[in-house]
Amino acid sequence: MSKIKILSLAFFLVLNSSMLLAQNSLDMMPVPKQFSIKEGKLYLNKDFRLAIGGNPNERLYAAATRFLRRLDEQTIQWFTQDQISKKDNDKEAILQIVVERPAEIHLGEDESYTLEISSSKIKITAKTDLGAMYALETLLQLLKADEKGFYFPSIIVNDAPRFPWRGLMIDVVRHFIPYEVIIRNIDAMAAVKMNVLHLHLTDDQGFRIESKLFPKLHEMGSNGKYLSQAQIKDIVKYATDRGIRVVPEFDMPGHTSSWFPAYPEFASASQKYQIETKYSHFEPAPTMDPTNEKLYPFIDAFIAEMVTLFPDAYIHIGGDENKGLQWTANANIEAFKKQHNLTDNMALQTYFNGRIQRILTKYKKKMMGWDEILEPGISKDIMIHSWRGKNSLTEAAKKGYPVIISHGFYVDLLSSAKDYYLNEPFAESDDLTLDQQKNIYGGEAAIWTEVATAETIDSRTWPNTAAIAERLWSPRDVRDVKDMYRRLEKQSDRLEFLGIAHHKNYESMLKRLSNGADILPLKTFVDAVEPMKELSRRKQGITYYTYTPLTMVFDAAKPESKVAREFNSLIEDFVHKPTKELGDQIKNQYNIWAQNHDKLKETIKIAPAIREIEPVSENLMKLSEIGLNLVDQILLRQKGKLKRKERMSFDKYDEIQDTFRAMIKPRGNVEFIVIINATKKLLEETMND
Amino acid sequence: MSKIKILSLAFFLVLNSSMLLAQNSLDMMPVPKQFSIKEGKLYLNKDFRLAIGGNPNERLYAAATRFLRRLDEQTIQWFTQDQISKKDNDKEAILQIVVERPAEIHLGEDESYTLEISSSKIKITAKTDLGAMYALETLLQLLKADEKGFYFPSIIVNDAPRFPWRGLMIDVVRHFIPYEVIIRNIDAMAAVKMNVLHLHLTDDQGFRIESKLFPKLHEMGSNGKYLSQAQIKDIVKYATDRGIRVVPEFDMPGHTSSWFPAYPEFASASQKYQIETKYSHFEPAPTMDPTNEKLYPFIDAFIAEMVTLFPDAYIHIGGDENKGLQWTANANIEAFKKQHNLTDNMALQTYFNGRIQRILTKYKKKMMGWDEILEPGISKDIMIHSWRGKNSLTEAAKKGYPVIISHGFYVDLLSSAKDYYLNEPFAESDDLTLDQQKNIYGGEAAIWTEVATAETIDSRTWPNTAAIAERLWSPRDVRDVKDMYRRLEKQSDRLEFLGIAHHKNYESMLKRLSNGADILPLKTFVDAVEPMKELSRRKQGITYYTYTPLTMVFDAAKPESKVAREFNSLIEDFVHKPTKELGDQIKNQYNIWAQNHDKLKETIKIAPAIREIEPVSENLMKLSEIGLNLVDQILLRQKGKLKRKERMSFDKYDEIQDTFRAMIKPRGNVEFIVIINATKKLLEETMND
Repeated sequence: MSKIKILSLAFFLVLNSSMLLAQNSLDMMPVPKQFSIKEGKLYLNKDFRLAIGGNPNERLYAAATRFLRRLDEQTIQWFTQDQISKKDNDKEAILQIVVERPAEIHLGEDESYTLEISSSKIKITAKTDLGAMYALETLLQLLKADEKGFYFPSIIVNDAPRFPWRGLMIDVVRHFIPYEVIIRNIDAMAAVKMNVLHLHLTDDQGFRIESKLFPKLHEMGSNGKYLSQAQIKDIVKYATDRGIRVVPEFDMPGHTSSWFPAYPEFASASQKYQIETKYSHFEPAPTMDPTNEKLYPFIDAFIAEMVTLFPDAYIHIGGDENKGLQWTANANIEAFKKQHNLTDNMALQTYFNGRIQRILTKYKKKMMGWDEILEPGISKDIMIHSWRGKNSLTEAAKKGYPVIISHGFYVDLLSSAKDYYLNEPFAESDDLTLDQQKNIYGGEAAIWTEVATAETIDSRTWPNTAAIAERLWSPRDVRDVKDMYRRLEKQSDRLEFLGIAHHKNYESMLKRLSNGADILPLKTFVDAVEPMKELSRRKQGITYYTYTPLTMVFDAAKPESKVAREFNSLIEDFVHKPTKELGDQIKNQYNIWAQNHDKLKETIKIAPAIREIEPVSENLMKLSEIGLNLVDQILLRQKGKLKRKERMSFDKYDEIQDTFRAMIKPRGNVEFIVIINATKKLLEETMND
Repeated sequence: MSKIKILSLAFFLVLNSSMLLAQNSLDMMPVPKQFSIKEGKLYLNKDFRLAIGGNPNERLYAAATRFLRRLDEQTIQWFTQDQISKKDNDKEAILQIVVERPAEIHLGEDESYTLEISSSKIKITAKTDLGAMYALETLLQLLKADEKGFYFPSIIVNDAPRFPWRGLMIDVVRHFIPYEVIIRNIDAMAAVKMNVLHLHLTDDQGFRIESKLFPKLHEMGSNGKYLSQAQIKDIVKYATDRGIRVVPEFDMPGHTSSWFPAYPEFASASQKYQIETKYSHFEPAPTMDPTNEKLYPFIDAFIAEMVTLFPDAYIHIGGDENKGLQWTANANIEAFKKQHNLTDNMALQTYFNGRIQRILTKYKKKMMGWDEILEPGISKDIMIHSWRGKNSLTEAAKKGYPVIISHGFYVDLLSSAKDYYLNEPFAESDDLTLDQQKNIYGGEAAIWTEVATAETIDSRTWPNTAAIAERLWSPRDVRDVKDMYRRLEKQSDRLEFLGIAHHKNYESMLKRLSNGADILPLKTFVDAVEPMKELSRRKQGITYYTYTPLTMVFDAAKPESKVAREFNSLIEDFVHKPTKELGDQIKNQYNIWAQNHDKLKETIKIAPAIREIEPVSENLMKLSEIGLNLVDQILLRQKGKLKRKERMSFDKYDEIQDTFRAMIKPRGNVEFIVIINATKKLLEETMND
């Protein structure tokens, strides 16, 4: 028997990487490019020490110190090493790290590493300290324990990312996202091997960065809620120390309402401006006037200030969602278009983009924008950021533009981890040549904050973004959903230990909503439901303002209900093989929901803020009662005790289907479609023979 | 029947304030100086609006905006007002706020306010915006709900604090406490009407503030963990916006190890220095050399830089725990003492203090120091900060020194809320004249961070500090412990909604310790225990370093177990009147603990980090088994069914007492003394006739 289970990049074996991980209870996320599991364990004790050789830098010493503290916090070994420095080069230390050279934190830097664990030694080798930092994250993920203590399993990992651009975009505008939330999200990004933090800094609802040159911009454009330059510098340093680039976005020429309270002269309509408090329905949207020659020196000076803060090569200029209604309504602008042979507003925007690109080039910056900017005449060296659909991604790649994708990665749309995970950037059928494929640099998860606040943003972003991070790092063929969920749960815990607040605010939000009552009835309900998907909440016709309270049940509910997902699995198992044991588990859950409604009604009496969910809770109760009957029917039939006349009639079947349909209608901003669909599977099963 | 229940300052009625609060389910904390409850309710709806008149300032507009958002977040009314400004002066608005003048944020400013709520209007009147801000906090605390919705009860509150100095000292050195933790603690302080944030910024283990003048101080003295000047400015602004003064402490001449890696020439022994990683056992402790004339211009320049950051009149110079062993060992310093007729090291320190005071006076700052500085010859205008005992407080007050107290308010000692609450600054027996009493300006809760980190500091500080805040604000005679606990629980929830992390990290810490196992067995155990009190953990002879992991069961456990406290109440009720119902409740709890041990042992198998608690859990199980028998004995006796020979023998009694004594011995860093003592009450009861 071979003592070594090898996994190579070969297609056949890659398919089995998830099986290998599961068999060995390994929780690495993202899954490495290549690994082989061996027999043996390296047990930890307080004498565990690390040494760094080769050509390391201060960033790696700091990262190694953080690694050591995190490992000790988890294992309580009382390690003896304090701050790691160049004196820590003892060849006898258990963990040996060797790097060839310090990394440059820019697009395309070498991120590969090798991690070898035997029962007595650990060796990390990497071209750059970036690779070494990733190896340390992988090592932390490999920590296991048995009755003898904590240990690392023997393994060889050869790892490198599939895409060089793996980002998270945070909209700090719609709701202000303060410094400390960004800092902790950087920690989370580093833990899942992401390497680009994209900050959406300006938009209609706020100008969220301090300008010392034009202080009226943030003073009149932010209600005092902005990132100071000192904070930006700290954020960039914190990110750079973790191998993460920071790409700033200054959205223009649209999405610029917040510039104009200070500088109305740069808008395309002559009027008084204020910060926008709505998210739509304010057409004609305030837009920069591309025909105003004074605008360009102003932007030039602003960019000159900003490049002192952001060392990365890229600046994102947005460029999205500009209908140009202010342009069309302005006779001077219309005249300018005719004069310059600009046939439509998009052509005018392309003209504007060209002017902006010249400014960026002057400061040695590369331009990047949302996919609307991909118009005839746009320069070939602009990075396209695809968001409206995959067509723009493949179109850009085919035309030779560098491109990244966020379509399908909008975590504020509250989809399931599965959906994000399977959002493969390009399909075989896209018919891209290898060279064209190379134009696809990666992607970014995006968290827009119309309906997220500092309190809820983590619960919208994590752990889903970890699934996206794996899509962008791991080989294309790593796509076992069940194993992803298994590992995501572990990764979610690790993120929590790092300080991410995706769970931490849940119970306090339920407590606030329960208004002094025991939170259990509300928790039983909210655990089962999900916030209404996509933008359906806004589509109900209610106008949301920037100051609308986002502390409702919708906001407390997690994007994906783990209870509902596991309940669905249970039902699938039961339908596949209806045993009494599975039936009892299902009935137990239905009973909890059925009985919860009366308890929740008691809470609602003293908790007016949750009144809106009463009809949803009632529906969940009714669904549960239906479900209980269906399980009983299936079990009776299974035992051969169901009389023919007791079988489900077509009328009854239709009636239940109607009931389900009625339950799906939006109410109270939360839904339990996963549970309805699971119950439908029972219904279908009763109709089978 | 009178429709109005009046409470005045008269002694008789003040005694009843807690009764009145409880009767009316009012949760104000701190209890106002004077209030009268009327009949009537003002229901909230989305038309609720506020207006500000008189002579308001920007600070109050911002505070009113925050109030509105917090009220809306709790009630989900979708209020229509956004940012409050001078345009919000509508006389028809439901909430009318009138202030006479903007406050100066300094010691002794008027903090009084009146709050009147009828069923249709709310009126707040205050001399300054400080009073108005306190009134808004009180108003939020008065929010109630019934089946008709959220409402404010009719009431008249006339409020002002007992002491003008109500502070929280945060040690940001021993473990670095970052910016965002300080910010959220300022929110908490404002919620409990505290008005001084005292930052302990430098100590042996770190120099935690940026000096642009002497950057080597923080660069070589902090391992990169310090508050930048930009952050300090933000903190001071954030605090000032909430009516809170910021007093910085630069501890000297002792507690100064972290100054000397950069400037060894200012120490009293010629050697190489490094940041201290231990908390004691490093005598002779590095100490400034008061005989070095170059030291004073250096401190002068440093203070000149710091006064640009801290506008408050006071600067705290520490001055504590200097044994002066480095001085005694230095022949030059000994010679200086003789030459200047300084008879001992304390006299030399008084000389040093005088020199420092002259520097502070130059910058128009008042000096403040720990009570060691109260020595003959010390200037009369120095604020004494009493910590070693109440004697120093009364001594200072009698000698005519201004003084505040922290003795009995050290929240890192992990005492009960009751102990902190009843820590009355001065007793009748202290025999202070009214003028001498006026020298007592108030007090400060203090959180030292040798065994607290950014993850755990909130759970050590809150809600206990809210009990201290009430001691310093409310009339002396407000001291009903039971009612304090009732209101503290509500206050604790409110602090949680504000973002304080005193509960939020609990489950994630238990999750990390449980290492993937269900956390319930560990939670059942940790809910019942308390971290070992005082410094007994350190007294076990284990040396703690600044990098020792503080993620143990000790660190997760709350300073005071609510489960144990409520269990003790249950037992007291039962002993007072042994009913079957109470007996069953007690037995139910004992059964949970008795049965938990086997489950916890299963967790421990895969969670090596909690091995140390196994013997403690076993003791809790044994105690529970004893307790179950005792309850049965008492119930049998109550029913007259206990036979004489079945009664507790003296031998058995002694044996159980011995068992209890053995259980109290320190093990695993946590204890359950409250439960042992409660069980002892059962034991004593079995011996009664």
